[in-house]
Amino acid sequence: MYDVKFELLKRDRWTGARLGRLTTPHGTVETPVFMPVGTQATVKTMTPEEVKGLGAEIILSNTYHLYLRPGADIVREAGGLHRFMNWDKPILTDSGGFQVFSLSDLRQITEEGVYFRSHLDGSKHFMGPKESMEVQQALGSDIAMAFDECVAYPASREEVEVGVWRTSKWAEECLKNHHRKDQAVFGIIQGGMDKELRRRSASEITSLDFPGYGIGGLSVGEPKEIMYRVLEDLQEHLPENKPRYLMGVGSPDCLIEGVKRGVDMFDCVLPTRIARNGTVFTTYGRLVVRNAAYARDFRPMDPECDCYACRNFSRAYIRHLLKADEILGMRLTTIHNLYFLIKLMHRMREAIANDQFEEMAVDFYTRYNSGKI
Amino acid sequence: MYDVKFELLKRDRWTGARLGRLTTPHGTVETPVFMPVGTQATVKTMTPEEVKGLGAEIILSNTYHLYLRPGADIVREAGGLHRFMNWDKPILTDSGGFQVFSLSDLRQITEEGVYFRSHLDGSKHFMGPKESMEVQQALGSDIAMAFDECVAYPASREEVEVGVWRTSKWAEECLKNHHRKDQAVFGIIQGGMDKELRRRSASEITSLDFPGYGIGGLSVGEPKEIMYRVLEDLQEHLPENKPRYLMGVGSPDCLIEGVKRGVDMFDCVLPTRIARNGTVFTTYGRLVVRNAAYARDFRPMDPECDCYACRNFSRAYIRHLLKADEILGMRLTTIHNLYFLIKLMHRMREAIANDQFEEMAVDFYTRYNSGKI
Repeated sequence: MYDVKFELLKRDRWTGARLGRLTTPHGTVETPVFMPVGTQATVKTMTPEEVKGLGAEIILSNTYHLYLRPGADIVREAGGLHRFMNWDKPILTDSGGFQVFSLSDLRQITEEGVYFRSHLDGSKHFMGPKESMEVQQALGSDIAMAFDECVAYPASREEVEVGVWRTSKWAEECLKNHHRKDQAVFGIIQGGMDKELRRRSASEITSLDFPGYGIGGLSVGEPKEIMYRVLEDLQEHLPENKPRYLMGVGSPDCLIEGVKRGVDMFDCVLPTRIARNGTVFTTYGRLVVRNAAYARDFRPMDPECDCYACRNFSRAYIRHLLKADEILGMRLTTIHNLYFLIKLMHRMREAIANDQFEEMAVDFYTRYNSGKI
Repeated sequence: MYDVKFELLKRDRWTGARLGRLTTPHGTVETPVFMPVGTQATVKTMTPEEVKGLGAEIILSNTYHLYLRPGADIVREAGGLHRFMNWDKPILTDSGGFQVFSLSDLRQITEEGVYFRSHLDGSKHFMGPKESMEVQQALGSDIAMAFDECVAYPASREEVEVGVWRTSKWAEECLKNHHRKDQAVFGIIQGGMDKELRRRSASEITSLDFPGYGIGGLSVGEPKEIMYRVLEDLQEHLPENKPRYLMGVGSPDCLIEGVKRGVDMFDCVLPTRIARNGTVFTTYGRLVVRNAAYARDFRPMDPECDCYACRNFSRAYIRHLLKADEILGMRLTTIHNLYFLIKLMHRMREAIANDQFEEMAVDFYTRYNSGKI
C-alpha cells in the first residue's frame, strides 16, 4: 500500500484546526480541503478543466455507482478512472458501503458483506470488503476507503455496536485484499452518536495503522450539535499525524465547525445538488435564485464573488435559465457553489496560517447570517 | 432601419456559391455561415465563451420563446438580449411566426396575425407583424426577421397562395412598425414547393427592398431534392448584393448543397438536438455514440477532429455519461457537433476563395458517406 504522505504543517493555538499537506501519486493537496463529488466519474455539469479552474485539488468518486455503471472492468480498460474521465489530479473513492446501504434495494447484511439489488435495474449483487477493494483497485483512485457499515440515525445501541464490530472486521479484510502500491486505503471510524462506541471504533481502526481515517456515520440526520460533540470527543483519539476525513459534510457552517474540531478533509453532494435545484451560497446567506423575487434582479448572485457566474450573469438571467430548464443555469449555480466552498477552505487555511482562524469564522458567520441578500 | 452591410466578396465560377461579409452593430460575420441556435437566450448546454471558442460569429434566438419566457420586458430591462445573455457578437432573432404555427396550441389565423395559446401554460396570446416587431425591438437583436406564415408540407396550392399573400402583407406591416436604427429587418420568401409561387413571393418581398432575405418554408418535411430544386430556381430571383438565409437547415449535406445554390446563412437546431440524444457528425458519417457498440471504444468520437471533446474524451466515456444522464455528455456532443458544422463552413469559405468548392464537396462526401466509422 502506498503510504499517502501527510505533513501536519501547523496546529491552531486556540482551536483544533490544523494546516496540512497530503501528497498522493497524482499530486499534492493542501488541507483542510473540500472535495467536490464526481459520483459517476464526472462532477455533475462540469468539465475537469472547469473543476480545476475553481481551485479544486482532489475530487471524490463513487465506487457503488461506477461498479454498476459503466462497470469497473471498462474503467480499468480505459487505463483507470483518471484517464477515463480525464482528471489528472488526486481522486478519492468511497467504498460503496454507504450507497449500498442508502440507495440499493432489498439488501441483506452478513458477516461477509451485503447482498443488494441495483437501484438501476434491480439486478442482484454482492459487495463486501474484498469486492470493494477489487473495484477500487480497478478504478485506481489515489485514496481508497475501507468498506464499512454506516448505521442509520437514530439507531439502537445494539445496532451501532454491531456496526462498529462489522466495520472493524471488514477493515482488516480490506487490508488483506489490497495490493496496489500506488493507492492508499483509509480506515473508517463508526460508532453512531455514542461516545464510548466512537472511542472503541477509533481504537480498533487506528490500531490497524491506516495512512488516514474517515469519520463515517455523521451528518445522517442528527442535529448538528450532536455531530460537533462527537467530533470534539473524537479528536484526541485520532493520531495527530494522519489526515482526518469527515465524510458527507459540506455546508459552510459544518466545514468551519469541522475544521475547528480537527478535520482535514470533507466531501458532500450538497453544494452541487442544491445548485441544480436553484439554491446558492452567498456571502450573505443562502439565495434561492430560482425564486420569482429575482426575475428582475440584475445583480450577480453574490455581489462579493468573483466566480465566472457572478462576473458575467445576473440573478434574472440565471433564474430564467433555471425556470426554462436550461442546462447553463445548473452549470452556473454549480460553478458558484463549488467556488464558494473552495474559497472558504482557502480562507480557512490562510486564517490558520495567520493565527486568525476564530476571527475569520466570526467574520464569516456575521455576514452569512445577516440575511442581507 | 440599420442597413446591415453585406459585401459580396466573390462568386464561385462553377456553382452558385458565394463568399461574403455581413457587418452588423455587434461585429462582422464571414459568409456562408452557420448560426448556432440559442432558443431561450442560451445555446443549449453552452456558455457564450464556449460558443465563441468554437468560432461562431453569430447566433440565432427565438422571439416566440423569449416573448413567453422570461418576457420581452425583462430582456429590455436587462439592457437587451446581448447583455441579458452576455453575448457581445451579432444575434439574429426569428419572428416567432414559425413557432406560433408549429409549437403553440389552438391557433387561429386572421389577416392581422395569429391567436394562439402558449405551449407552456395554455395562456392566450396574439402575435402579428406589429407585435413581432415590438418584441424583436425590445430584444435588440442585430437582425430581426419579418413575421411570416410558414405553410406546412404538403399543402394545397391554395393554402400556399394564401401564405404568400399574408407573408407579403405582413412584410409591409413589419416595415411600418419597425423603428430601431441599430437593427435590420430581413424579409422572408415563402411559396412552398411551387416554382411560380416562390417567384411571386420573391418578387413581392424583394420589391420592399429589405437588407437581406430569408428563405422560409423549406426543410419542412419535403424530400431534399425538392428543396434543392426550389433553391436552384430561386437564385436568379434574389438580388445579388443581399444576403440569403435558408431558415432551419443544418445537416452537413444540406449546408453544402445550400451554399452551392447561393445561400449565405443557415440556422438549425439539428446539430445540438441530435447531440443531446447521443448522435454526432464525424468525418466518416454519423455516429450514435450512445450505442452499446461504443462501451469499450476508447477512440475519440471523430479521430480527425480537434475539438475539445475529441481531444480529451473517448467514445466509451461519453457513452457512459449519456447513459448515466450526466450533463457533461450532452455538453461534449454539443461542442463537437457545432464545431463540426462551423469548421465545415470555414472549409467551404476557404474552398470558394481558392476556386475549389466542388472538389471540397466531393472530398467531404466521399469520406462522410464511406461508413468507415
